[in-house]
Amino acid sequence: MAGDIEILLVDDNAEDVELTVRALRRQRAPGAIHVVRDGEEALDFLFCRGAHASRSFDHPPRLVLLDLKMPKLDGIEVLRALRADPRTRVIPVAILTSSKETRDLVEGYRLGVNAYVQKPVGSDDFRSVVEQLGAFWLELNQPPPRAAFGA
Amino acid sequence: MAGDIEILLVDDNAEDVELTVRALRRQRAPGAIHVVRDGEEALDFLFCRGAHASRSFDHPPRLVLLDLKMPKLDGIEVLRALRADPRTRVIPVAILTSSKETRDLVEGYRLGVNAYVQKPVGSDDFRSVVEQLGAFWLELNQPPPRAAFGA
Repeated sequence: MAGDIEILLVDDNAEDVELTVRALRRQRAPGAIHVVRDGEEALDFLFCRGAHASRSFDHPPRLVLLDLKMPKLDGIEVLRALRADPRTRVIPVAILTSSKETRDLVEGYRLGVNAYVQKPVGSDDFRSVVEQLGAFWLELNQPPPRAAFGA
Repeated sequence: MAGDIEILLVDDNAEDVELTVRALRRQRAPGAIHVVRDGEEALDFLFCRGAHASRSFDHPPRLVLLDLKMPKLDGIEVLRALRADPRTRVIPVAILTSSKETRDLVEGYRLGVNAYVQKPVGSDDFRSVVEQLGAFWLELNQPPPRAAFGA
């Protein structure tokens, strides 16, 4: 599986993206992380269309790290679209957001998010949280096998 | 929320239970973990009935750590029952099992398990995995708020 994208990071905040990628790259190969900046591009990536038409549904990321407040399409709508399609339904998704709003937690869980983590404020805490996210989802968690996708 | 059960551990293997509880109690209050030994007792606990009739749906555990192969009712059936009822549907569940069977992974993900972790063989590795599980689900993950439950 060399060369596969392991994490899709969906976030429009340049500073948060830099912190996240730097923390993850301590653990992973540089090519293992793909960054998109809005919800529409996230769906193009995950549904293998547009600029990502050469991708295959056979190689989903092991984790989608999903911000909520984003241009074009927000994270809740991305999650809704993923969960509505058997080809993407069981991809593990962790929301990583500044939002503490109950409404976002409720919507996220009702749509079947795997985990919901709040972005910490300081960069040391941020790095530590991202490292724990990476360690758990990429090392410990067994991803869904191919047969878990599809009708 | 002092006194609430934070983790429901569902496992019939006495040795694994001891290792798990010991690892979790380094991080948590002794009363925060409740252990049940089969799937039926797990459902009694989670649905606040039988010996657990005095419990309330208002205080679900933050995490159910769920073994698969168990007497009476196996873990997949426990997960199916939880996900089928709006009062319990969004409780975070991590399967922690020796099983590597694709069928278990497929069923678990299709039923909406939050995470699937394999039990390591050695006790040092076992402790480390349980500590990571505890740190992630009890410290980092924001649990579903009350409003996420119900119809």
